[in-house]
Amino acid sequence: MLEMLIQFNNSNFEYLTAMKFKTPVSVESIAQLIGGKVVGDGNAVCSGINEIHKVEAGDLCFVDHPKYYEKCLRSAASYIIIDKAVEETYGKTIIVCDQPFEAYQTIISHFNPFAAVSQSISASASIAATALVMPGAIVGNHVVIGEHSIIFPNAVILDHTIIGNHVTIHSGAVLGADAFYYNTKKNREVWYKKMLSGGHVVIEDDVEIGANTCIDRGVTHETRIGRGTKIDNLVQIGHDVVVGSNCIIAAQVGVAGATTIGNGVTLWGQVGVNKTIHLGDNIQVLGQSGVTASLAPGKMYMGYPAEEASVKRREFVWIKRIANLWDRVAQLEKRIEG
Amino acid sequence: MLEMLIQFNNSNFEYLTAMKFKTPVSVESIAQLIGGKVVGDGNAVCSGINEIHKVEAGDLCFVDHPKYYEKCLRSAASYIIIDKAVEETYGKTIIVCDQPFEAYQTIISHFNPFAAVSQSISASASIAATALVMPGAIVGNHVVIGEHSIIFPNAVILDHTIIGNHVTIHSGAVLGADAFYYNTKKNREVWYKKMLSGGHVVIEDDVEIGANTCIDRGVTHETRIGRGTKIDNLVQIGHDVVVGSNCIIAAQVGVAGATTIGNGVTLWGQVGVNKTIHLGDNIQVLGQSGVTASLAPGKMYMGYPAEEASVKRREFVWIKRIANLWDRVAQLEKRIEG
Amino acid sequence: MLEMLIQFNNSNFEYLTAMKFKTPVSVESIAQLIGGKVVGDGNAVCSGINEIHKVEAGDLCFVDHPKYYEKCLRSAASYIIIDKAVEETYGKTIIVCDQPFEAYQTIISHFNPFAAVSQSISASASIAATALVMPGAIVGNHVVIGEHSIIFPNAVILDHTIIGNHVTIHSGAVLGADAFYYNTKKNREVWYKKMLSGGHVVIEDDVEIGANTCIDRGVTHETRIGRGTKIDNLVQIGHDVVVGSNCIIAAQVGVAGATTIGNGVTLWGQVGVNKTIHLGDNIQVLGQSGVTASLAPGKMYMGYPAEEASVKRREFVWIKRIANLWDRVAQLEKRIEG
Repeated sequence: MLEMLIQFNNSNFEYLTAMKFKTPVSVESIAQLIGGKVVGDGNAVCSGINEIHKVEAGDLCFVDHPKYYEKCLRSAASYIIIDKAVEETYGKTIIVCDQPFEAYQTIISHFNPFAAVSQSISASASIAATALVMPGAIVGNHVVIGEHSIIFPNAVILDHTIIGNHVTIHSGAVLGADAFYYNTKKNREVWYKKMLSGGHVVIEDDVEIGANTCIDRGVTHETRIGRGTKIDNLVQIGHDVVVGSNCIIAAQVGVAGATTIGNGVTLWGQVGVNKTIHLGDNIQVLGQSGVTASLAPGKMYMGYPAEEASVKRREFVWIKRIANLWDRVAQLEKRIEG
Repeated sequence: MLEMLIQFNNSNFEYLTAMKFKTPVSVESIAQLIGGKVVGDGNAVCSGINEIHKVEAGDLCFVDHPKYYEKCLRSAASYIIIDKAVEETYGKTIIVCDQPFEAYQTIISHFNPFAAVSQSISASASIAATALVMPGAIVGNHVVIGEHSIIFPNAVILDHTIIGNHVTIHSGAVLGADAFYYNTKKNREVWYKKMLSGGHVVIEDDVEIGANTCIDRGVTHETRIGRGTKIDNLVQIGHDVVVGSNCIIAAQVGVAGATTIGNGVTLWGQVGVNKTIHLGDNIQVLGQSGVTASLAPGKMYMGYPAEEASVKRREFVWIKRIANLWDRVAQLEKRIEG
Repeated sequence: MLEMLIQFNNSNFEYLTAMKFKTPVSVESIAQLIGGKVVGDGNAVCSGINEIHKVEAGDLCFVDHPKYYEKCLRSAASYIIIDKAVEETYGKTIIVCDQPFEAYQTIISHFNPFAAVSQSISASASIAATALVMPGAIVGNHVVIGEHSIIFPNAVILDHTIIGNHVTIHSGAVLGADAFYYNTKKNREVWYKKMLSGGHVVIEDDVEIGANTCIDRGVTHETRIGRGTKIDNLVQIGHDVVVGSNCIIAAQVGVAGATTIGNGVTLWGQVGVNKTIHLGDNIQVLGQSGVTASLAPGKMYMGYPAEEASVKRREFVWIKRIANLWDRVAQLEKRIEG
């Protein structure tokens, strides 16, 4: 079990509650770090930092656009980093600073500094005695690999990835690359600035990950592949995606960021799945379909945008009948005009 | 020629007749290995083991679902591993055991045991003197690489792969990863159990394989890329696929398991091809098409499901005319009712 | 800036004006190299060699099919390698030889000979002191890597690639693999013969390239990714593609050879883009679309073939109405016939 794995990697434990500080940090010291000004109680302590929709009481959150001011101020966060003093703070403590996004990056870098992978197999990795890591594979810092798991040649397991027992990672797979997630402002020379990823990847027991498949780390939490799920080659799993247990994900499927997939789901080859949606348990999505919105459990889907397969198949038949309709309408017109 | 290559790798020869035992094995000793009970002549000898549709006289086959009992018992196999004694054996010798799938795995593991790649370039590989293997490339156990072939950095050539002469394998390509092929039972905690792959990959002369392309090994036979065929980057070729000669397979194409592709076939970018179908000689399939069923030779195809391009193009035109039809039907209705 | 990078890699400078000879070469010596016969002034000097549509005055060009004779003879080239003497030379100097394609390969190989990557980090590479190259990464011959750039484990940077400052290349990415570009003749045993790639890859400042993404080198010029552009995982960028600045290219997109993409373009996941077309500035192409022809700037596109999204969305609605039309036409027929 993953819980057991974590025990033998105790120094890593705090990391697992993603984006929480190891020990609470005062608001005032955060303000000093980012060059901001506290409005409220500077002695209050922050437990962590997170995005608006994942933040919890005790956490910091940042906002840099008036459009989102109120949403952020009304979120679960206790402390708000913002680029303008506001009248209504909804009881939050505020840190005002010029560039809240840059402040967020500064905080992440400070508490979770970037560490290069400096050896093929990091000395800080915990690899079970029965696990097998083949030549050319990379095992990053603080990685955990469970019993009887096999890492094929040239697979890359980046920092803080946790791999359970009886897992197979095929050659060229990349686990834990950064999220494709940017702060966007079109009034500067470089429009997109990367949000530093503070999350990681968790692979549960009995999972298989195909060759050259990519599973990105979470931005502020985790990307998780559930027990017994099998993923084929050249698949893309975006940041913060959670895949349930006993799923089949065929080759060249792509799942965009923060989407959740239930248990027993089958996605056939080259399916694309939109970001931040949910696929219900036990659904099947036929090859090449494009899933743009959440799907109810237990059904078969196909096409772009993906709909129930029976509906879509009838559509294909209807399209074949347009020519016939055309002829019949022309005949009706002739009769009426004639 | 491949035949010549094989001669200088003689220890490997038996492997090439995939899933045949090096020397025949008695039914009784198979039964002992898997804990089964022979019904029939235990002294009879088995030549190999295979799937229902590939099995030959002298071979073992297994069946674990009543739905397939008769199909298996009437197959070309001489010996059947089955989970229940049956009255009608169609003249076959039977080995009854509780878990035929697990028995199959036991036999494969026993006669073709898993061997880790323990060195970047395996000592058991046969690499022609004029071949070039660049840094970071992996050459697995019993791999054969022919004259003037080039393996670019970080490509991975897994066990038993055979590469002909004048072949180029680009960086990050993975040849010989396991088939994505599972025994499925939804009444257990882990639904999917991997069928061990006993087959391998064969790349004929003058082939080029693009960067990060994956070619899986066969389950019980071989995955073969025919002479002079050129495959672009990020392509997925499933287990037991056979591609003919002088084909062009553009980037990001996916071909599912056990499909056969004729000679002179062109698949443009991002095409998906279903499993266990056949594409005829000299066809062209336009970009992003989804091929769900076998295609007759010599034509051009497009769309999902792929049809002759001329038919599909007319369909696109017909769709553009629905709005016009709608207006005309409305006018007809007005006239008749008016 | 790239210009500065180039200064500290001076020996490479001539390479950057792709397919130009370091010093001019006489027509007569080219003819001797390829076994051809000069018709015209053998003492004239050639500055380089290129394709029909990229060739400049002073360059060589080759033609081996009567269909293209005139096009080549009327191109900007000064010297033509051709397989038959022609009456009208349009003032060009001609080198007649039996196999112009093979002659082209001979010239490329002679002046730009294939060099194996013989070390993980080539001694001829120029890597800035502040750049970070992690374990397992390959840095080929004459590669340039700018300040503060990060190359993740097992990424492959092939010969002559130029990487600017503040660039991130993720694990498994392959930059500079050969173009998928062949000379085709169906009357020989091997139909496709690779055109040797003489070009290279240029990655401008502030670019990010995702895990297992492939960016092929140019055939006779360069493949360029513009400043600030962010490319996700498993993307294919073909030879000689030029991508502008501040573009977003999501996972599993494929862009075929020699296409140009403007600035501020967003291509969502799994989009496919045809070869030798142009995408205008600031367009968005929705997921899984297939772009078959050039697109005007500033709009949103979707579907296959890609059209303006508003048009395509209406089409989806019209398709849903065919069943209704069918019923209404049947009723009209009944009324008229009744």
